[in-house]
Formats: sequence, C-alpha cells, structure tokens
Amino acid sequence: MPVKLRTSLAQSLRQSLNPKYGGITPHRLASSKATPASKPAKVIFSGIQPTGVPHLGNYLGALQQWVKLQNEADEDTKLIYSIVDLHALTGSQDAAELRKHKWNTLATLMAIGLNPWRSTIFFQSDVLAHSELMWILSCEASMGYLSRMTQWKSKLDLEENHNPFEASPGKEGNKLKLGLFSYPVLQAADILIHRATHVPVGHDQSQHLEFARVCANGFNHRHGQVLVPPSTLLSPAKRIQSLAEPSLKMSKSHLNNKSRILLSDTKNTIEKKMKVAVTDTNGYVSYDPEKRPGVTNLLQIAYHMDPEAASAGSLEEYARQFEGTHLKTFKSKLTDVIDDHLTPIRERYFTFAASQNGELMEAAELGAKKARESADATMKAVRDAIGL
Amino acid sequence: MPVKLRTSLAQSLRQSLNPKYGGITPHRLASSKATPASKPAKVIFSGIQPTGVPHLGNYLGALQQWVKLQNEADEDTKLIYSIVDLHALTGSQDAAELRKHKWNTLATLMAIGLNPWRSTIFFQSDVLAHSELMWILSCEASMGYLSRMTQWKSKLDLEENHNPFEASPGKEGNKLKLGLFSYPVLQAADILIHRATHVPVGHDQSQHLEFARVCANGFNHRHGQVLVPPSTLLSPAKRIQSLAEPSLKMSKSHLNNKSRILLSDTKNTIEKKMKVAVTDTNGYVSYDPEKRPGVTNLLQIAYHMDPEAASAGSLEEYARQFEGTHLKTFKSKLTDVIDDHLTPIRERYFTFAASQNGELMEAAELGAKKARESADATMKAVRDAIGL
Repeated sequence: MPVKLRTSLAQSLRQSLNPKYGGITPHRLASSKATPASKPAKVIFSGIQPTGVPHLGNYLGALQQWVKLQNEADEDTKLIYSIVDLHALTGSQDAAELRKHKWNTLATLMAIGLNPWRSTIFFQSDVLAHSELMWILSCEASMGYLSRMTQWKSKLDLEENHNPFEASPGKEGNKLKLGLFSYPVLQAADILIHRATHVPVGHDQSQHLEFARVCANGFNHRHGQVLVPPSTLLSPAKRIQSLAEPSLKMSKSHLNNKSRILLSDTKNTIEKKMKVAVTDTNGYVSYDPEKRPGVTNLLQIAYHMDPEAASAGSLEEYARQFEGTHLKTFKSKLTDVIDDHLTPIRERYFTFAASQNGELMEAAELGAKKARESADATMKAVRDAIGL
Repeated sequence: MPVKLRTSLAQSLRQSLNPKYGGITPHRLASSKATPASKPAKVIFSGIQPTGVPHLGNYLGALQQWVKLQNEADEDTKLIYSIVDLHALTGSQDAAELRKHKWNTLATLMAIGLNPWRSTIFFQSDVLAHSELMWILSCEASMGYLSRMTQWKSKLDLEENHNPFEASPGKEGNKLKLGLFSYPVLQAADILIHRATHVPVGHDQSQHLEFARVCANGFNHRHGQVLVPPSTLLSPAKRIQSLAEPSLKMSKSHLNNKSRILLSDTKNTIEKKMKVAVTDTNGYVSYDPEKRPGVTNLLQIAYHMDPEAASAGSLEEYARQFEGTHLKTFKSKLTDVIDDHLTPIRERYFTFAASQNGELMEAAELGAKKARESADATMKAVRDAIGL
C-alpha cells in the first residue's frame, strides 16, 4: 500500500491533495461502482487519539485499513476519520504536547494516503456538537452499564469486576475521573452524530461499539427513528507486538522507545530498533507462533509490509522462505522492507508537518467544515426529537 | 416589585424592551454607580429549569431577586440568566412539553422584568460550548466527589450515604443515569464558562457551587489562572411552602396543582387555591411559625408581595396587623395582594407567550448571541491552556 510518490514532492503533494488532479487515490474511480438505489449509502467512521506520530502497531492495526477503505469505497460511501483530541484529555496531557501531537497526527493521516477531499478528516474539538450529543446520550446512559465496561478499569490497572466505589470508595473514587468513566458515551456520540453505518474496530473496542448501538436503539425507542445503530466492520486482525516485550501489544506508552517503530523513523533508526528487537536464544528463523512470539512478530510485520507478501499466500507460507535464515540477515531484510514501505510516507509526513500553516491548516479547515455539516444535520433531527 | 405597566400594553412592551426607550428598568441608571477602577466588574450568573410557568416559590425564592439584582446592579456588572434546557433532559421529558416550557419560561423571565438588553437571558442549548467545557471539566472531576453529592440521591429517593453501586449495583446502577450523576459538572461549566463572580443560590445548591469552585481551582492549578472561582451570593431565605402540605416546599412536582400558585394564574384561580390552602383548626390569624406552619406560610407570601410590607419592618411585625383577623378575611386580602402583584406580570406574560415569533424570538436570539460571545471568550482561553 505504499503511496507512489517520491519525486518533486512539494509539487505533487499539491496535486495529490487537490481533487481537480484526481485526488491522492488514483484507484478510487476505477474501483468505485454505483450502489443499487435501494441501498442506503455507507458511512464509515473511525477515530485516532493524538498521542504522537503513530507507530507500526497503529498503522498496520488500523490506519492502513482506513486508506484501503477509502481507496476501495463506492463513490457514495462517506468516510469520516476523527482525530479525537477531546478523548486525549482523559489522559494527563501537557498542552504543548497535545497541540503538537494533534497536528502530527493529521500530517500522518495525510502522509499515509488519506485524502481530505475524499474523506472527512477532522479534529473532534472542532465540532462542538460531539460534546452536546454526549450530554444528551448521558441523560439515558445507565451508570450500571458504564460501570461494567472494562476499559476504565484496565487504564487504572483495576480488576475486571471492580466497581467504581467498591471497597475503598474514597481512594479509587478520587483516582477515577468522570471523563475516563464516561468516555464511552462521548465515543458513542462521535459515531452516532455522523450516522455512521460501519465502524472498523479492534477487539478491545467492540464493547464500546455495542454501547453505541445500545445508545442509538434506546434513543430511537424513546424519540423515533433518528439515530443509526452502527455495524462493526471486521478487519483481519493485525495485532503487532512490542519489539522489546513480544508478549505485549506495541504501544505508545511502553517506557522503552525501541519497543516501537514510528511512521516517521528513518532507516537508521529502524535499523537500530531492529537490531535490539527481542527474539529468543535460537539465532535462526522458524515459524512457531506458540514458542517463538518475538520471531513471529517480526515475520508478521514483514508479511504486512512486503509488497511481495500478497503473492506468497498466508503468513505461514510467506514465512517459509525465511526458514533457517540467520536472524541477523532476516532483520536486515526486514529493515529494508519497512524502510521501503515507510519512505514515501515519511517524506510526505515531514513535508506536511513542516507546512503547518499551509496544506495542513487547509485540510483541517476543510475537515472541520465537512464534519460540522455532517454533525449539524444529525443534531437538527436530535433536537427536534427531544424538544430543544 | 410589580412592573408599572398596565395600559396600552403592546406598545409599551415594545418600548420597554428597546434600550433606546431606556429599557424596562427605569431605576437602573439612578441606582447604578461607578465601581472603582481597581475592582473587576461583577458577573452574576443563575439558571432556571424550564419546567413550565414558574410558581410563587420560584418567584419569591429566586426570580424576584434576579430582577432586583438587575435593577440595582452597577453599570459594569454583567448579569447572565440561563434557561437550562439541557439540565431538564435529566428528568423524563416529553419533547412537545419541553419545547413549550422553554418558551413559557423565557416569557415569564421577561414578564417579571428581566430586560434582555440589560441582562443576558438565553437557552443553555443555544450555546454548545457549555457541553464542551463540561467534558473538559469531566476529565478532572473525581467520581468519588460526585458520588458524595446528595442531589442525585434525593432525586432517586436514596439515602444520603448511598453509593452509586453499593449493595445492588445492577438495579440502582441501571436506574441512575449518567446525566443525573454528572450534572453538577454541567452546572459548573454553566457558571465557569461565563466567568461568573457571583451566583445567587438556595441552600440546596450550595454544594454544587462549592463543586464549581473545586473545578475552577483544580483547572487553574494545572493550567494557569484561566477560570474564575465563583462566590455565593447570599439572599434572604424566602422559602415558600406548599399550600396543600405546608411541611413541604412549594414545588412543580407536587401532584396537587392547588399546592402552588403560578405566575400566570388569574385572580379567579388564585382565589380558589387560597380557599383550599391548608392551615389548621384555628380559624383566626396568629404568628406562630412553630405551631402554625400553614398560616405562617400565607403570612410570608403576603409579606413578600405586599408593597406596604416594606414599611412594616420584619415579618413578625408585619403579621401583627392581622392578629385575630378571621382566616377567611385574611385569605381574601392575600388574594388581592397576590393578584395586584401578579397582574402586570401576567399581562406581560400572556402578551409575550402569544408573540412567540416576535419579541420572544428576538430576545432569544439576542440572548444566544451575547451568551455565545461570553462563552467563546472563556473557551478560547481554556482551549489555549489545555492545548486544543
């Protein structure tokens, strides 16, 4: 999926972002086909927290699919991608960092091939109605249901059966903030306000999508058919593990920054991180997901980023060609594969990131405008329905 | 405090609402005096739920003071009064009713003498940023603190020491909605977004104002001096009791609608309600708050509405003139006092309520505009401070 865009970058960027040049996605027109008139158009929605430049786990697990969905979508499909900066506030954030991360995330989304003319790419906080719908949904969201959701517990390292005020109400209660506890309701608002029909989610978010459906159905039950209960868009699970601790998911929050490869990493950096990527005592490649999680993770990354993988079949079949290869050799090959894949993304990323007052601002304004229109249409119906 | 406005109403209304005629409040200029330059201007904020035409309890307990504050304010004091329709959603509401109640409440506020040019009178839902600031405050609002607040418990008839998930998490948890649990945070946002320095509150709301201060101080501690911790504006307690059950506060939710007098009630209706107002077996007036709550309540109402009360001194002194009067005679006198006080309000109310597309719409638009400007100024500083 690497974007074919390496020469005379500045000029081609302008072209690639401008719809009159056909947009960033030359495949779009070829792949778009008319949907039958009877079938309502799809609305795909997803969001990403602005926690810095995304890493390979974010990219292969979600973002790459966003681009694929965009490029293969029917012409009447709406694609809405939100940089959920309001959600980022549930973590402790430094203001200057959040500001930087917001723009870097937008630069990344454009760098990987999302087209702000084709898709709606916007900062959540640019559309106030997200918060308003959240409040409206709050008035019917059950505290019991929310307390049984697991993510706030895992973020606070609490047991799955922990109740917010059980055992030590003062202590846990003071640690737990309303924002973290209630953010599934904001997430439901994010989805419902754009009448999303399809939401690509990872396993850890399926509970939240179910909650969004409960909110939509509850609202519709009381106020008529206004909101759209969204469907889950299943994607082949591409869970990338930490390079430093292969038992953990690759994550922004791991203390060791060699545990993850960022989309902005140079070849030199990738090489260094690869060299220290944890495997096991066996110095040669073999495919054994059970006993060799570290090596399997590297094979996975190669499989998802190597343009030749498609013709090789399954991961297991792809892995066969490296059977017995010295790990050092394989890591070197993998460094090349990653770098080849990331080079055009990285080049575009740095161009966008450097042009914060140019293309990026233009894209943010365009996204905010389109997202507001989308949200306002829903909110008009919601307000009418509840008497505001 | 009756507004002197009984003849050629339609025309004088237009004049009274238009600042070029001096506004509704001729006392304003006379009573306004310049504040010392060193003292920052006051911002007074209060809100009312749109639950229908307010009754005497609302009026004497709060609304009458709003008008007094407006009419006696220094020229640079800002007065901001919100019809908090988003809060109304925490109760079960019929859409058509809520819509009707919103406009009737606005008509009432204007009828009692609030001037939309002098004060900012607006529907909460017209200013989306209230919800946005609520979310931002949520991210630091402690679940423990919120769970110890009492109003959600009293609304659900729970004990004061009830924890949201204690004992029967499923049942109570499902009954308790996030909106009711979290509405002190929206209330804090209402106050803080307008940088209110003074908030007139009844005893039952002082806990919420304290919470708003906690929110403001917490935010300022983390992000610099952005929000203003509000002060309580103490007012002489005027708690009006139910006419049907003098041990209870006069309330919109009492099943017996003869338990309250609405500001829109005609003389005939007031008379009927007075006739059945519960007192005791003694048929003559005497002042005895302990043993005769029903009679004392009627004396209170007379004291607060009779223009001659001011010269009489305290309630006890005022009551002395009715000592030994037959209750029937006193109730008849009270009917006159209430009707005299309410007649100009009622006339204005019906004129405004009938002109829903004229003055009322104009006032709502003006209020929304002024409130948005006030909120936007704060939100700009808030967003800058947290990195949005």
